Order: sequence, then structure tokens, then C-alpha cells
Amino acid sequence: MPKLNDILPLMFDFVTAGESHGKSLVAVISGLPLGLEIDFDSINQDLRRRQSGYGRGGRMKIESDHIDVVSGVRFGKTIGSPVAIIVENRDWANWQASMSVKSNEIPEDRMKKVTKPRPGHADLAGALKYNTKDIRNILERSSARETTVRVAVGGFAKVLLRHFGLEIASHTISVGEVSLPDERKYQFEDLMAIRDNTEMRCIDLALERRMIDVVRAAHLGGDTIGGAFEVIAHGVCPGLGSHTAWDRKLDGLLAQGIMSINAVKAVDVGAGQQDIRLTSA
Amino acid sequence: MPKLNDILPLMFDFVTAGESHGKSLVAVISGLPLGLEIDFDSINQDLRRRQSGYGRGGRMKIESDHIDVVSGVRFGKTIGSPVAIIVENRDWANWQASMSVKSNEIPEDRMKKVTKPRPGHADLAGALKYNTKDIRNILERSSARETTVRVAVGGFAKVLLRHFGLEIASHTISVGEVSLPDERKYQFEDLMAIRDNTEMRCIDLALERRMIDVVRAAHLGGDTIGGAFEVIAHGVCPGLGSHTAWDRKLDGLLAQGIMSINAVKAVDVGAGQQDIRLTSA
Amino acid sequence: MPKLNDILPLMFDFVTAGESHGKSLVAVISGLPLGLEIDFDSINQDLRRRQSGYGRGGRMKIESDHIDVVSGVRFGKTIGSPVAIIVENRDWANWQASMSVKSNEIPEDRMKKVTKPRPGHADLAGALKYNTKDIRNILERSSARETTVRVAVGGFAKVLLRHFGLEIASHTISVGEVSLPDERKYQFEDLMAIRDNTEMRCIDLALERRMIDVVRAAHLGGDTIGGAFEVIAHGVCPGLGSHTAWDRKLDGLLAQGIMSINAVKAVDVGAGQQDIRLTSA
Amino acid sequence: MPKLNDILPLMFDFVTAGESHGKSLVAVISGLPLGLEIDFDSINQDLRRRQSGYGRGGRMKIESDHIDVVSGVRFGKTIGSPVAIIVENRDWANWQASMSVKSNEIPEDRMKKVTKPRPGHADLAGALKYNTKDIRNILERSSARETTVRVAVGGFAKVLLRHFGLEIASHTISVGEVSLPDERKYQFEDLMAIRDNTEMRCIDLALERRMIDVVRAAHLGGDTIGGAFEVIAHGVCPGLGSHTAWDRKLDGLLAQGIMSINAVKAVDVGAGQQDIRLTSA
Repeated sequence: MPKLNDILPLMFDFVTAGESHGKSLVAVISGLPLGLEIDFDSINQDLRRRQSGYGRGGRMKIESDHIDVVSGVRFGKTIGSPVAIIVENRDWANWQASMSVKSNEIPEDRMKKVTKPRPGHADLAGALKYNTKDIRNILERSSARETTVRVAVGGFAKVLLRHFGLEIASHTISVGEVSLPDERKYQFEDLMAIRDNTEMRCIDLALERRMIDVVRAAHLGGDTIGGAFEVIAHGVCPGLGSHTAWDRKLDGLLAQGIMSINAVKAVDVGAGQQDIRLTSA
Repeated sequence: MPKLNDILPLMFDFVTAGESHGKSLVAVISGLPLGLEIDFDSINQDLRRRQSGYGRGGRMKIESDHIDVVSGVRFGKTIGSPVAIIVENRDWANWQASMSVKSNEIPEDRMKKVTKPRPGHADLAGALKYNTKDIRNILERSSARETTVRVAVGGFAKVLLRHFGLEIASHTISVGEVSLPDERKYQFEDLMAIRDNTEMRCIDLALERRMIDVVRAAHLGGDTIGGAFEVIAHGVCPGLGSHTAWDRKLDGLLAQGIMSINAVKAVDVGAGQQDIRLTSA
Repeated sequence: MPKLNDILPLMFDFVTAGESHGKSLVAVISGLPLGLEIDFDSINQDLRRRQSGYGRGGRMKIESDHIDVVSGVRFGKTIGSPVAIIVENRDWANWQASMSVKSNEIPEDRMKKVTKPRPGHADLAGALKYNTKDIRNILERSSARETTVRVAVGGFAKVLLRHFGLEIASHTISVGEVSLPDERKYQFEDLMAIRDNTEMRCIDLALERRMIDVVRAAHLGGDTIGGAFEVIAHGVCPGLGSHTAWDRKLDGLLAQGIMSINAVKAVDVGAGQQDIRLTSA
Repeated sequence: MPKLNDILPLMFDFVTAGESHGKSLVAVISGLPLGLEIDFDSINQDLRRRQSGYGRGGRMKIESDHIDVVSGVRFGKTIGSPVAIIVENRDWANWQASMSVKSNEIPEDRMKKVTKPRPGHADLAGALKYNTKDIRNILERSSARETTVRVAVGGFAKVLLRHFGLEIASHTISVGEVSLPDERKYQFEDLMAIRDNTEMRCIDLALERRMIDVVRAAHLGGDTIGGAFEVIAHGVCPGLGSHTAWDRKLDGLLAQGIMSINAVKAVDVGAGQQDIRLTSA
């Protein structure tokens, strides 16, 4: 297998498809080498992590997502072909009339049309751009549900990176005014040790309780509240990304990836805007 | 909707995945506008056309392919989102052991390993490149079976093109030494009128019988025989492709597309190497 | 001309080349339509803006950059072909020995080799990745000098955007601890009215003097100091970017573009991490 | 340096710019590794080969093209950065009025407007697509002059390929009815030995005289005449291109590259449409 630096920035690529309430989400990953051992349980566990956490909506319970890999993996290992991943919508039965692929034979009142654009969403811009009167045609794709299949793609990316000694961990560092104090020290291992069934994925359990309180208070007030999370890569080998082209610089690619997640409005690299804590990574 | 020239060369794009004997083939099409009416029957009919024809192997009968669209189409029309197409392998039951995605728990003798590279295929080059001892890891993806899902993608492309008045037709013009004589005149309508259940898709039924004889003779001699087909686009609007960049020139893109079909070894544009007949197009 | 939404996200593309002390920087822009009127003076003025400002190094005076357009523009208007831009290095005479393209005939001591990697730069990672002993091979390309030609590319982008009623303005909102107070209100026109020869491009001249003091103090202490700038787009038409694919989302693309500028370590969109002031835009 | 198979299909990329009678042609090559030794004389020799040959127009004598590399090469070797190549128009003095980049201050009669589209060119389609009344805006870019800088790019590609033991040679195999007989055997070395100042680059000098006669006869009749050339790659390592994606298949990419050359109307791979001679390659 070639060195990571040679293949990673260029070969790994993916595309996603699927509506929020459609039959399934689909992703096709290109550029994986042959021979990577895939741990399906670990990817399904990542999908569960996405669905759990304090304050997630009721749908999360219905979903219980898991991946169905239909190509590119044989006997548990990649074979170099494109990997196609399907994540079925567990609630499809309730949606197949109003999201029917086939021509419309249902009464208007079962179409679940949306005509009122929500602020802070792609609803209005999308409807104007695509000139559609049913905003459902837009919101079904702009929904954060799309990140489900990106989490699954990330599972494959993590296997590739792990092959080269690189590990990824993340945790919540603030919710509203409650944040991990700057002087709080921790090791990468501490992040890896956070249990997946935690409600906030905060390294400090007392702080986590306070974060939950903040969310609950916002919720009771009919509002939501923002926060911040930190992603740390451990064992990064030199040379990922490239200094030779503006659109291959690693910081820029990371910023794009993170900012493309719905609701994310800011990205820092390293100490970014604050003097954040240094990790052992 | 914008003019065809503005969107077609840039927006329409697709990726395919899937092994020849895997669970399913998958394609994701990007860049379709909202509002195109999709005729599923017509696409399934194209898939049948791919499977019929004199001399096709036995598998063609098993397959009887049809598409399952899982995203990007609602109430029979595109909604601007990526279109995900799945074509299931009708023979999956017989292959799920030897093409299992999950880790290998089957005995070696049921793995259907391939260790003898076939000439004229990607077998040897692929096995060397990917350093695999089981050529099945290569041939499952290099197989012409992949064109199944490309035919389905083509069905969507044809709907888009038809919207702008462009129609596509094709027919067989030679098999071995038997070819449609240069003086034979025909109209685009004649090509459209060729029945889909013809064995050779030749415009001249007497000639078709002779083509079939040539294939049968080659087959009896344990061989195969080549031929040529013509694809005609009718109603082409000016400005497809671009003169501004070598890799957007229409002739080059068409040549790539045709040559990427397994077993195609030559492409002509217009009169190409011969003074071929002029059509009414 | 098509609607902006149809062409902008897909067609406009560019590539840059050139070393910091090489003979020239080069950019090739693809995807501009025919007929855009180019104001060369305005682009050269943008280049001057990049070079001025308090605390810029001595080189900025030498440079006095201006563009030489060698293709894609005729009689002052784009013709649809790729636009090639060259920005000559005004200090080339002093560098042509150590940056000679031709084979090395100069004595070792005139090669201006760099063997000591600087912290916070691509020096070490680049040298390891490319396995080179002379870090100059890396830093010449990773240098922020590359943004010169990106500013020129931006000049063409701004003409395209202006055609559709979109204007861009930017200003400095903080340096170190000195920042524009949240309650300070301003209009887009105020930003447009900031003179190009200002030293900090701050809308408040008294605050600008304090920002300059902060930089001077850092400089006297042998250090540098960070800050923040705000970019505002006025007259944005709905539908730029796309909700259909993660890598075409506008926020993500903007974040990548900004983060790809050397030394930028954080990007906010809208209110981002703070409750920043609302503009009239 | 990584293995050829890992980097070649993905990393090497290029873009060109420049009008036929513009100030210069430009190319930017991305993805070359560090350390390739560039032989400028050899690339200029390739440019001369492009300009020579029986029947080339008068302009070929004026041109005498040579490359000016302005980035990506230092002391005769690539440094991993993008390589920018400029080929100046030696006849620019005679064209700078009618191809002026700056706004039009010349009288109408010196603008060398073209209003009559030539058959078999991009003239009409381009003028309709771009809605321009002066076809010069189209033909300046669609001209075969663009291949000049592609030949220079090819010079860099050949250095990269040679590094992995791969050599390329080409020769003329037919002009009109005159063609190299099928039974004529030759070695790759024979192709390499063809002198660059030959008029037809045919391996058989007697045949070459007859080819020249055919061209002369066509020319006297106010016509042109087609022909065929063969390109042979020697020492090809297994695994170039990819069987995993339709648009990375080597045959398709080769077909696109060849067909994108102006006036080329057919491409065969291997024996293609005929039983062409086998080479020693």
C-alpha cells in the first residue's frame, strides 16, 4: 500500500444521495485501497452516537440507523471498488405516500406539502432557486438527516486513517455559557474513554449536568442553544493536504467539511480565536 | 429552466458502484434540474434491450433487470436532489456466500476464487496493481455488468436531452464482414422504428439474418466476432461541449464515453475513418 | 447570459502557479462568460490594497504589483476563453540566480538554501513530505505571496458578481484586544467609503489609531498580533451554493476559501461564535 | 517517490489558456512530484516537430515556438509546485491591435473581425452559443494553435513516464490511400530512430515520398487530405487507469485525449477497427 500522503488527499472521495423521509440514504465512496478491514459494528455504533445525546428529537428513537453495504467490500475487507452504503429509513412506511417516487396518485391532503419557509434554513432560498411551490422538495434534501450517511462514510475514512496510525476523537467543550475551563487538562486517551451513551459527550460529568440544564432551560423557553465541540486528530503524519494549491490546503478542507454540517456556523483550527487548551495529541 | 447549453456540460454527473455478482448495482446522478418527468417503464425497457439480442449469455435471462429509484424523484418528477438508482442482482441468492460483504466464514471451496487471468480483460493488470491473489476482487468490478446501471443513468440523461428537443437512436451497422451498404439510405425515424425485440437491431432484416449467421458461425468455432454500431443524435442544439478547454470538447467526451464501454476498441465521430452514409439528422 | 444561480457555482474555477521569489505568479480562470467588462485599474488597485496597510514588510514597497492579462480578454471584455493572468516579480533581478529555472550553475552560497524550518509554517511538513533538504523548495510556494494572484482572480469574480447586483466589502473589526464595539452601527455604504490608503481599513479612525498602537507594541516586543476582519456581501441573490451536495454548500465553500488564506485560523458565518453586529446588508 | 500507479492517474492534471493570435499561450500543470529533471531542449524540439512537416502553413515558419517556464522548476528540476509554461506568440507585433486586451481604441477596419463561419469548425456553434457577432472571439480559442502548449505539457508528462520506464513514439501510417502495408514489420527502436526533420514522420522513406505526393495533389486541387498516425507506448507498467470507475478507464481517457486534438475524427485502441500490425512493444 502506498504511503498515506500519496493517496489520501486525492483518492478518497464520496457522494451522497437521499431525502430525509425518503426510502433510504445512499453514499458511494471512491478511492479506497484494497484490503482495509471494515468493522461494521463500529460504524453502526457511530450511527447510534449520532442519534443519542440529550435533547434529540423523538425521531431519533424510531431511526436506530444501521448501514447496509452493497458493494466494494467482500469477506469484511475492501476490494478497491467503489463502496456503496445504504441506510434505510425505518419510518418509510409512514412516508411512502407523501414521498412516493412514482407518479402522484394520492390525494392532495396526504402530500404533506410545506409552504411556509422556516427561518435559518434553506427553505426560502431553495424554493426560489428551484421555483417550486412545495418546500418539501427542498427541505427533504437540506435536512441534517443527510449527515447520517456521512457518519457512515466517516467510518470508512477512520479505518483508512487508522491504518496509518491516525485516530480521531471529539467532545463537547461548551453549551451556552457553560464551558470546559481553559485550565482543565486532559489526555487524548481521556477523550477516547468517554462512554458512547453519555448525554453530552463532555469529559467532565459535573459540567455535563450543567450543560444539560442549559439545554433544558432553553427548551422550556421554546428556544434552542448553541455550543462548541472539539475534534482532535492524534498521530497525524506530516504532509496531509498540500501547500501547492489553495484548494488542497488541509485547513481549508477541514473548515469546509465541518462548516458543511447543518447548524455549524464557525470553525477554528488549532487555537483559532481563543487560547484554547493544549492537548497531549 | 436554464438553456441546455448552460447546464448540460457542467452539471450532469454520475458515479456508479457495484460488483457483477454483488447484491446490487448503484448509481448516483448529480445535477439534474427539478421537474423532469421520469418514465420508469422506458428505462426498464432500455435495460431489457441491453439484455436481449442474439448471442447473449444465459445470465441475461436470469437478470431481467429493473431500476429501483430511492431518491431524487418524487411523484414521478425530479426534485433537484441527487438521484440514487439501485438495480438488484436477481441471482444474488446463488452468490451471497462467495460475494459476502461480511467477514469470511465460508469454506475455501465456496469462495469461487479466480486465479487464472483471462486475456483481453483487466484481470492480470488489476491483480498486479491491487496485489490480490483472487482475481475475483478485480473482475467483479471490471465486468461489463457495470454498464447495466449506466444504461439506467442514460435513461435520465435522455429525459433531460429530450426536454431540449434532442433524441438519440442507435443501430448495428456491421458484424464481421457483413455491413449495411454505403448506398443504403435511411431516416432517423427508421431507426426509432426498430422494434426493441429485434435480435441485432439492424435496420435491414435480411442483413440481420446474415449478421446472426456470422455470430453463430463464430460461436460454433469457439470464437466471438466484432461489429460496429452507430449512434445518432437528432435535434442537437449548437453549443454543447466547449471549444474553450481540451477536456470539455464534445468529440473527446463522446469518445471517452463510448470507449469506456467494455470491448469497444474504436470510436469515429461523423464520417470518421470511412465515408459513412449521411443521415437525415 | 444565463441567471447567476445557474452558472456561478459550477463554472467559475481557477488555478494558480508561481513561487514567492520566482519570475512571476500565474493564474488561469475558467468559466467566465463572454462580454464582462474588465476594469484593470480596479484590479491593480486591489493589489495595491493588499500591499499597503500598517506593519507590512519592506518587500511590499518593492513589489507594486500589477496584472498582465495575456488571454481571455479582448478590447476590454471577456470572450469566454480561459483568462490567464501574470503578475511579475518586480524583484526578480535579485532572485534569478537562486531561483533559476535552468540547471544549477551557481555556487552553493548563492543558492539561498533554507535548512531551518520555521514554526507555524509548512516548512517542516513540506520538507518531510517531499523529502527535500532545501526548504526553499517548499516555502516558495507555501508563502502568502500566492494570495497576490488570488486577489487578481477575485477582481474578475467581483466583476461577474457585480453583473448580478452583488457587491463585496470588508473591514478590520479587531486587532488584539481592540475591537469595534458591538453597539457600533454602520451601513454597507460606510464600508465602501473606507479609503484604500487607510492603514488598517477600520471604519472608525480613532479605533484604527489604537489598533496601530497594538501592532507597534507587539512589534517592539518582537512579536506579532492577530485580529479579525469582516467580509460582507450586499445584494446576494438567493440560491448561490446548493443544498443538494455537502461539498457545494455555500457556507462550506466560503469557509474553505477564507481558511485557505495563510495565517487565517478561524471563520464565522453570520453571527458565528459571537453576537456580532447586524449590518444593513 | 511513490509507485507510478499510485500517483499518475490522479495527480497529473493541467489547464491551458491562450488565443491563437494572442500574446502568449499558457499552461499550468499540477501534480508533478519533486525532483524530475526537465530537458528544456527536448521539449523545444517537440515544439519544432509540431511546426515542421510537409504542407504546414506559412505561419509555422514565423512561430519557432519555445517554452518559458516561470514556476515549478528550480535548477532544472521540478519542486512539486504547479508548473507554469508560457509560449509567446512570435507574431504578436502584427496582432496586438486586433487582439488587444485593453479596451478598443482601434478603428473598426483593423479589428480583423470574422463574420463568415467556416464549415467543419467551431465557428458557427460557438458564435450561437456565446451570442457574438465577431467569430474571432471563438476561433482564436478553438484554433489548433492551442495544441502548441499541450505539446509542451506532454514534454513534462513524458519525463514523468520515462522515470517509470515508459517511452512514447509515434509515426504516420497512412495519408489518403497510401498506407504502410500490414506485413511491414518494425521495432519500437525504428520509431525512435525516425529523424525529427522528416517531412511526414513515416518509417518508410519511399512511402513518405508517395504520401507527400498525395498531399501535394490534394493541395493543387484546393483540398486537404486525411491520414492516420500510430502512437505506441513501450514499457507500460500494469495498472495505469482504473477498472473501478468508467471515467478512469485508460482506453476512455486515451480516446478523449486523442479525439480532443483538432481534426482528429477517429481513435482505435490496439487493433481497433483493422487488424493492424503488431509491434515489438
